[in-house]
Amino acid sequence: MPMRVLGIESATLYGSVAIVAEEGILVEITALVPMRHLEWLLPAIDQALRDAGISRSQVDGLAVSAGPGGFTGLRIGIATAATWARAMGIPLVGVSTLEALAGACGTPGLVAPVLDAKRGEVAAALFRREEDMGLTRLREDTLLPPEALGELLSTDEPVLLLGDGLARWPEAIQRAVRLPRVAPPVLWTPRAALVATLGRERLLRGQGHDPYRLLPLYGRRPAVEKIG
Amino acid sequence: MPMRVLGIESATLYGSVAIVAEEGILVEITALVPMRHLEWLLPAIDQALRDAGISRSQVDGLAVSAGPGGFTGLRIGIATAATWARAMGIPLVGVSTLEALAGACGTPGLVAPVLDAKRGEVAAALFRREEDMGLTRLREDTLLPPEALGELLSTDEPVLLLGDGLARWPEAIQRAVRLPRVAPPVLWTPRAALVATLGRERLLRGQGHDPYRLLPLYGRRPAVEKIG
Repeated sequence: MPMRVLGIESATLYGSVAIVAEEGILVEITALVPMRHLEWLLPAIDQALRDAGISRSQVDGLAVSAGPGGFTGLRIGIATAATWARAMGIPLVGVSTLEALAGACGTPGLVAPVLDAKRGEVAAALFRREEDMGLTRLREDTLLPPEALGELLSTDEPVLLLGDGLARWPEAIQRAVRLPRVAPPVLWTPRAALVATLGRERLLRGQGHDPYRLLPLYGRRPAVEKIG
Repeated sequence: MPMRVLGIESATLYGSVAIVAEEGILVEITALVPMRHLEWLLPAIDQALRDAGISRSQVDGLAVSAGPGGFTGLRIGIATAATWARAMGIPLVGVSTLEALAGACGTPGLVAPVLDAKRGEVAAALFRREEDMGLTRLREDTLLPPEALGELLSTDEPVLLLGDGLARWPEAIQRAVRLPRVAPPVLWTPRAALVATLGRERLLRGQGHDPYRLLPLYGRRPAVEKIG
């Protein structure tokens, strides 16, 4: 099945769009566009369609990064994806921004994407890239102070860390994690090709979302919180 | 030093351009453009400059993927990069297509990029991602039949494989390597951001190339060859 999926990633300071199909990435455009997601996104999608040499009606599904992430960027991405899905009558799936980012790790082992969530917090989760290259989730998307990451990522194995949280809190994060391995920064960028690849697998299994009901994911609060 | 570097990758069926700076990726555009590198490349560079919000004169250096790779795509990329460097009077560096692709591996261990080199051969090399995330070259870029990869990649450690050679020769390559680990296909795409990041490090160390003398790298022949 060709199943061409348009992916949208706008949860961070980056905007990214991609079209993936059975043969892999057809096109991907990523740019650092702080506060410019709205004016950047639709022209970027048009450009992606042109580069891929396909028309709007040849897009078979939509995948959108649904958070945790920046308030405005996320809403613009979800609104765009949901409206496109509704207008064209094609399926839509929202994927965790952190799970998509974890897809940048290609080697078996633990991987923890960590995004800057502002107000002194990070959004993080924990996954294992298995020997067969499947990705298993070990911890839910969680909002917490960087120095509390040690509890979320408690393990005696090395943990590959990536994401813009590491640019904001490099020392606090590495101190909190027992065996930190920081991925090269060029791999920290949230990419729509990772969103679209993950979303495509789910759409092929029929796991879409109702475009009227897809809302941003914020990540849960840690189970134990200080009172007051 | 800001050092904004424009990267060009056109050694495979993909075209890719990116601008990276001290803060990381500013923009990256990648598209599957078989036989369309020439008409795709310059407009893509213009788009990248617009998305990054910079003018041509704010590009401080050029990095180009110099092979091994496709004859025509490589020449278009090198001609474009060398001409830009000469016209604007800025430094140029050519980087190995295989070394740039190895940069997609973010975890310590062995990584072997393998590209389809046509005529029944692959272009491959071997690198180690060190614990400090530096990338060390262990084998030169080499052209050889896929079933001969075992000798080039002879080791008792797992080897992470990535690149379009795996789409062309999946069984032959995995049979030839002792402990193969195949990276998820979404990570196989040669990316200009990887070229530009590697090239930027070299340009900051003053390791540029003469734009009049930069030629495609073809990869060496294996030391032992059948006669006749």
